[in-house]
Amino acid sequence: MPTISSDYKLVLTAHKPAGTQIKINREESLGGPTFVTMAGPCTVEDEKQMDEVARAVKRGGASVLRGGAFKPRSSPYSFQGLGKPGLQMLRAAADRYDLRVVTEIVSENQIDLIERYADILQVGARNMQNYELLKALGRATKPVLLKRGIAATIDEWLSAAEYILAGGNEQVILCERGIRTFATHSRFTLDLAAIPIVKKLSHLPVVVDPSHAAGNNNLVIPLALAAVMAGADGLLVEVHDNPSTAYCDAEQALTPMQFLELSSRMRDIACGTGRVIY
Amino acid sequence: MPTISSDYKLVLTAHKPAGTQIKINREESLGGPTFVTMAGPCTVEDEKQMDEVARAVKRGGASVLRGGAFKPRSSPYSFQGLGKPGLQMLRAAADRYDLRVVTEIVSENQIDLIERYADILQVGARNMQNYELLKALGRATKPVLLKRGIAATIDEWLSAAEYILAGGNEQVILCERGIRTFATHSRFTLDLAAIPIVKKLSHLPVVVDPSHAAGNNNLVIPLALAAVMAGADGLLVEVHDNPSTAYCDAEQALTPMQFLELSSRMRDIACGTGRVIY
Amino acid sequence: MPTISSDYKLVLTAHKPAGTQIKINREESLGGPTFVTMAGPCTVEDEKQMDEVARAVKRGGASVLRGGAFKPRSSPYSFQGLGKPGLQMLRAAADRYDLRVVTEIVSENQIDLIERYADILQVGARNMQNYELLKALGRATKPVLLKRGIAATIDEWLSAAEYILAGGNEQVILCERGIRTFATHSRFTLDLAAIPIVKKLSHLPVVVDPSHAAGNNNLVIPLALAAVMAGADGLLVEVHDNPSTAYCDAEQALTPMQFLELSSRMRDIACGTGRVIY
Amino acid sequence: MPTISSDYKLVLTAHKPAGTQIKINREESLGGPTFVTMAGPCTVEDEKQMDEVARAVKRGGASVLRGGAFKPRSSPYSFQGLGKPGLQMLRAAADRYDLRVVTEIVSENQIDLIERYADILQVGARNMQNYELLKALGRATKPVLLKRGIAATIDEWLSAAEYILAGGNEQVILCERGIRTFATHSRFTLDLAAIPIVKKLSHLPVVVDPSHAAGNNNLVIPLALAAVMAGADGLLVEVHDNPSTAYCDAEQALTPMQFLELSSRMRDIACGTGRVIY
Repeated sequence: MPTISSDYKLVLTAHKPAGTQIKINREESLGGPTFVTMAGPCTVEDEKQMDEVARAVKRGGASVLRGGAFKPRSSPYSFQGLGKPGLQMLRAAADRYDLRVVTEIVSENQIDLIERYADILQVGARNMQNYELLKALGRATKPVLLKRGIAATIDEWLSAAEYILAGGNEQVILCERGIRTFATHSRFTLDLAAIPIVKKLSHLPVVVDPSHAAGNNNLVIPLALAAVMAGADGLLVEVHDNPSTAYCDAEQALTPMQFLELSSRMRDIACGTGRVIY
Repeated sequence: MPTISSDYKLVLTAHKPAGTQIKINREESLGGPTFVTMAGPCTVEDEKQMDEVARAVKRGGASVLRGGAFKPRSSPYSFQGLGKPGLQMLRAAADRYDLRVVTEIVSENQIDLIERYADILQVGARNMQNYELLKALGRATKPVLLKRGIAATIDEWLSAAEYILAGGNEQVILCERGIRTFATHSRFTLDLAAIPIVKKLSHLPVVVDPSHAAGNNNLVIPLALAAVMAGADGLLVEVHDNPSTAYCDAEQALTPMQFLELSSRMRDIACGTGRVIY
Repeated sequence: MPTISSDYKLVLTAHKPAGTQIKINREESLGGPTFVTMAGPCTVEDEKQMDEVARAVKRGGASVLRGGAFKPRSSPYSFQGLGKPGLQMLRAAADRYDLRVVTEIVSENQIDLIERYADILQVGARNMQNYELLKALGRATKPVLLKRGIAATIDEWLSAAEYILAGGNEQVILCERGIRTFATHSRFTLDLAAIPIVKKLSHLPVVVDPSHAAGNNNLVIPLALAAVMAGADGLLVEVHDNPSTAYCDAEQALTPMQFLELSSRMRDIACGTGRVIY
Repeated sequence: MPTISSDYKLVLTAHKPAGTQIKINREESLGGPTFVTMAGPCTVEDEKQMDEVARAVKRGGASVLRGGAFKPRSSPYSFQGLGKPGLQMLRAAADRYDLRVVTEIVSENQIDLIERYADILQVGARNMQNYELLKALGRATKPVLLKRGIAATIDEWLSAAEYILAGGNEQVILCERGIRTFATHSRFTLDLAAIPIVKKLSHLPVVVDPSHAAGNNNLVIPLALAAVMAGADGLLVEVHDNPSTAYCDAEQALTPMQFLELSSRMRDIACGTGRVIY
């Protein structure tokens, strides 16, 4: 177990022994008795896509719609997202199906814009140590979902969260999404031991993104179910109405049918988690 | 997904599409409809310890008793195991509770000795590429449990199994036990994506050792449950009647009470696995 | 060898077969016949420190003074740098000894400020995939030193550089500073194979930071000499006049005496490199 | 720096402050004032090959001929070596050019056989924790070259050496050959910081194998030169008279011409190492 570092204090369990709950809607809070599923495409592509995905994920029990409008891409020549029109499509689709919205923020200068359309602001793994962004999010009014960097220790991850709390925003959700290892059969190696460790050290809720860890939709369901049993408070899953045409991460997106299978299998094991799973 | 390598062929699904089942007892086969639990201490210490642990793991639904009599230890000054008297104690305790025996083999010269006392011969992670040992095990008459090396790719792991099959012994069980990564909050990082991948590529059954991956008994139950949901055919878990006095790996052993909690929680999710879990 | 990816093209050797040279002063260009040494403290602390370090590194043959005024720190409670007054001290000390200045930029909003004081803008490992920063640097007029992320592949590193070139700034220096591995005896593992590989793939100059890789000043000289022989075009080394009082990274800074020893040993092997080493 | 572990004591500097020197021939000892080069093919193939390689490496200043007769191969279907006839060819070629012989041992049952033909017994990375082999080597009369496992910490490596010393054989040479990391542009990542660390902790000589680390002959010379400057006592390099026809590791073998280039470049930097390099 990592020793408790003086690098952080506000994120520690001792600071808030009752645990942080982040209100999602009337029935659900992340970190509460209900398991929260967030699902949607990697990238917002068009209205029809968003409508179909939103309907599908709602039907599968999700309460939050994900989708990227500003995409951090390894290459400058890859599709960088639709920007503001993408945010509008995402919001409209979510509202139509009574879903909340989580979307990625990539610059300290985007806070006002993103807050206008999203309920949760996502920081991607590449920006986990973009401290100017974290400081700006400390002044945001919406919850922040902070992905773990692909080579971040738990100390570094909690220290990054501490930046946001120290800035005044106590609504932080941690997201394990796989670490980079020598193993190449999956895109990343999902580090599920991080869940019980972080939940012991910290009062913050922890969700898992099995899609980026897997890199292949054959692996998403087993990893998602494993994450549920390892103690995650929620999931962030990529779902696309037609993965073969997806603008990015086509291989790891679940089809609506596969997502329904996942949610059905999650309900089968709800009894073993002590939680409500829709 | 790894491309299928010409380094192996007998281990491939195409070679035995129905899958390999390894008979454990009248009701259970590894790779069959029943989930198989193997449990016991890291090291055989004395008769009383073995009796207490055997009774406890039997009560928790285990069908195989584990325990080491020949221990590969990082230091020459660490306890190296009781040797043959340890094998005798292990066998006697297992027989008393109608359990099968799995124990580690560390030399190509020990096959006759170990086969006399054990039902399954375990190859540890350090010896996964000790090819002289693998060749000798190809001529053994008992099943072999082959742990994945801490830095082995799936190709290397299946190639190691191929040595045993190519030698004439088709009774091989693969065991994922964690890989070495930069992460230090657990002893190793359990690579659960390896389970669906190996089960797709190969007809061999796959079990998971959450104890060595965890290195800490607080993490064993979440990782074990995660492994069940990721599709493992069985578990190999360390249980000690009094972990604080254990000769080795004291921190990662479950107490009998914790093992009962684990088995109870496994039964709660059996419905979600399509398997019988005792 | 990595296959050439379509993620980048402007950084490729084929785009500029003669190689990129980045003018440092009248005699020296990074990527040219002279080996370039950049040295200085982790953090700018005060005028006296900067004067002593600048004098020492000049005497040891350095032509660029390094020093941080904006520090990305893992914890919000660690010293974050002196900011603008730090930049002023750094510039003044450098000018006094006819040195150029390299310093870190941590926000897309700082370009004007940093360009006013520095000759080279450094992007730290944590920000290698902060694409908004990279895009802004594509519009900068000064050269950029781009450190490799601690878990970045060579493809990802070159793609990050491509963002800057695609934005219009062709003056990019790549800096290898160690990757995160399971090895804990050094802070990171210096990946020297990256040097010949990147120099073959790309026309950009490559320097090495042995200080962050080492994490311990006993290791800095051997790693620095190794980097010279692996083909680096220059070094970025931490030097502090009194490491025991340094605000950060105290353990890895060389003393002025150790820096003189390093530069003397580098000159001894200059004959083996085909370069001039001052 | 790793703390000194009670897992080992005989390997520690304090046990033999003057350092261990392993006599190679009249002029050279590993760990002494002369840098020792060991070179030769991955595998002994035939008499003509061995003669040509032996002549070439002698001309390039090598004093030890390497070549495998028993090859640990990932797949049972790969060429496993010529066995005893290979040892005979290796010995004959070495004797013709007054070279010593290093070759791999893969089983505790081979000690007598290998000792008859070799001057140094090599333990490969895969067998670094094959403790039965290490114990048997503790009773051998010839020096042992112990490669570091691809995921071994320095503590584990020194503990493995301790097995040999504790068994009575104090003639151990450590060999760094690269560790497995996420980086795929080289076969392994050469960990050169291990050299100064091990040389500080232990009295044993340390050599470097740049060929297995590189996996590609373009990288071998830069890595070899880097290893010299990082403080290695010697090198173990793959050389083949016609790499394109090599039975194994064809891509990483140097041609005789490349080996001459390497030895010439090593002599150019001898002045910077304080050693004689032939």
